[in-house]
Amino acid sequence: MAKVHLKYQTFHPSIWPKMVGEVSRDAKAGDLVEVIGKQGTRFGWGLWNPKARMPLRMVSHSLDDLDESFFDRAIERAGELRRGFLKLDDETECYRAIHGDADFLPGMVADKFGDVLSVEITAFAAWMRLEGWLPKLHEAFGTKRVVVQVDTDLARIEGIPRSGGVESDHVRLVKVVENGIRYEIDFSNGHKTGFFCDQRDNRKRFREMAEGKSVLDLCCYSGGFSVSAALGGAGDVTAVDLDEAAVAMAKRNANLNDAKIKLTHADAFTWVRTMIENGRKWDIVMVDPPKFMFGKDDETGYAKYHDLNKLAVQLVEKDGVMVTCSCSGHLTVDGFENIVTNVIHRQDKRLQVFDRTGAGGDHPTLSNYPESRYLKAIWGRVIG
Amino acid sequence: MAKVHLKYQTFHPSIWPKMVGEVSRDAKAGDLVEVIGKQGTRFGWGLWNPKARMPLRMVSHSLDDLDESFFDRAIERAGELRRGFLKLDDETECYRAIHGDADFLPGMVADKFGDVLSVEITAFAAWMRLEGWLPKLHEAFGTKRVVVQVDTDLARIEGIPRSGGVESDHVRLVKVVENGIRYEIDFSNGHKTGFFCDQRDNRKRFREMAEGKSVLDLCCYSGGFSVSAALGGAGDVTAVDLDEAAVAMAKRNANLNDAKIKLTHADAFTWVRTMIENGRKWDIVMVDPPKFMFGKDDETGYAKYHDLNKLAVQLVEKDGVMVTCSCSGHLTVDGFENIVTNVIHRQDKRLQVFDRTGAGGDHPTLSNYPESRYLKAIWGRVIG
Repeated sequence: MAKVHLKYQTFHPSIWPKMVGEVSRDAKAGDLVEVIGKQGTRFGWGLWNPKARMPLRMVSHSLDDLDESFFDRAIERAGELRRGFLKLDDETECYRAIHGDADFLPGMVADKFGDVLSVEITAFAAWMRLEGWLPKLHEAFGTKRVVVQVDTDLARIEGIPRSGGVESDHVRLVKVVENGIRYEIDFSNGHKTGFFCDQRDNRKRFREMAEGKSVLDLCCYSGGFSVSAALGGAGDVTAVDLDEAAVAMAKRNANLNDAKIKLTHADAFTWVRTMIENGRKWDIVMVDPPKFMFGKDDETGYAKYHDLNKLAVQLVEKDGVMVTCSCSGHLTVDGFENIVTNVIHRQDKRLQVFDRTGAGGDHPTLSNYPESRYLKAIWGRVIG
Repeated sequence: MAKVHLKYQTFHPSIWPKMVGEVSRDAKAGDLVEVIGKQGTRFGWGLWNPKARMPLRMVSHSLDDLDESFFDRAIERAGELRRGFLKLDDETECYRAIHGDADFLPGMVADKFGDVLSVEITAFAAWMRLEGWLPKLHEAFGTKRVVVQVDTDLARIEGIPRSGGVESDHVRLVKVVENGIRYEIDFSNGHKTGFFCDQRDNRKRFREMAEGKSVLDLCCYSGGFSVSAALGGAGDVTAVDLDEAAVAMAKRNANLNDAKIKLTHADAFTWVRTMIENGRKWDIVMVDPPKFMFGKDDETGYAKYHDLNKLAVQLVEKDGVMVTCSCSGHLTVDGFENIVTNVIHRQDKRLQVFDRTGAGGDHPTLSNYPESRYLKAIWGRVIG
């Protein structure tokens, strides 16, 4: 097996070019390689691709021997987590099956939607192995069809050929049930289905507290929180999104479940300002915007979180609940809580936080990669 | 209303003596006072007690007028959170009813156990008002009897008289059901019942993943996690605690539920070392020790968390689950995760974290007092 020496040692799963020292001559793109540490002894195992932005992706820090069967075991293990420990089959037909590095399969993310496995490939090593892995993936997750998407920009950088590899099955619409709620998943635009299974547990919780309450869902996207609230017995559900296609999806999902939702196609910022002027208030306000930050120092994105939360909190009824989310990996858990706390304190109010949640357990994070915790949700009552 | 001026401004709910400036002459211990900020204008409202370690406890930063009815509303609001939003009556007969500052009632903590409200008083202002509040508390939480405990050391400092005030009803044993599991609550030692409702959601989750697994419960206390695992269908449950009274409680709770648990009365540290020597492993290991840290710089306590986790992880079966908890408020969420991560990485293993939880929503925290998040639980698989 080819060897890659490290100049610096880190337990992080992604290794930058400047950290890589000597590399065996026979190391080929996509190879599983033995990683040698600074002391010249075995440090672990990784996937090698000299062209990639991160030429080495660590998959194990074990000092024992390791071969390709490691990945078969990683697939089995991913199945055990979702089905054996988390018992996800009991509540849903769709979940994150493979979560990249955190499932020891860098360069691959896969979601199960009923019998369809929707795979996104971002690394050559995963691309070249997918055909061999596919039967094992189908077995682990009870799927039969596959939709494969390769990011074109990444394909160029990683050296993934334009043709060859696993071909997608012909899949357009799939209907799935999550905690008793039906959703229509549209594959006509490939992997981007408009459905995020990472909010599953939060949708369930949201539904449980909605009974008899008026609910506002800001940036509702395909309507998961709105439909959940309506089926939970909310007295009134208002949902807003800027994306016309999202509003159409939300409408379809509402119809599928006979859920009554007042859907509005509008920019959340502008719309909220108008509602503040009109003196409108809701018992429960959900704020779940798209990713606003694209780098650690993205001040524009940071300001958007600040502004949207500052506006949204003014629509919360006295002693009502605000649930506010951020899916920006570049914003830390504490950083997000600081934003929310600051805008509320400046309005002479306080937030009585009764939960802090994230993505479901099918989106694990590694102890050596805690910054992969992208989704954060703060649940609190706004006390004036 | 008496006025208290602040020399420094902070949104923290507890104000130290050095931060207090001029105080109205008529301000008496226990009074609700208007708090004036540095600029000489209204800053909020608080409870005053010049003898206390924290002479001023803020209850609101509202600029509107405020009177004693604020506390009646706080009690109602506490009921709304538990019963209206969190729907706790659907799953349990016992929960934290009043969580001190975080429910805007500083100096009082109250747990509901069936029809008994178990109240702990730590401030004179709460003590002198309890008689007036009690009917409202019973109404908000559906309780009829009360057990009141005043910490004797705090009573002296706060100036709480030895006699007078609300008298406890005669309560000894109360049986309650939480998520289908029966527990016996023993009031013969007053407020310290040996039952912690803060782990309710975690017990439920633990139960859901236990089916067919071998389970080890380190520092099992009154057996909540062990009984939950056994009723969840665990193949084998072993529980260990150093406290003989706790082991007896765990045994009673196991019997109440016909749960099979192997109970051992032993020091967890010593016992785990022996098990490591014997090569014993479990599919799921719960580590839920008592509070180890009694100050931010408590190195002994810090070391205990380090050592116990370092030992416990060695008892986790390959690819098994470790759930590790800390109830030390002086250890931050990140600080605890660092300890756990470090001991695991030093064993050339990684933790695939699939959840991070805390106390249930009946133990809220305030946005201006985030360090009150004392309970932390990390859920992960140990990958070697």
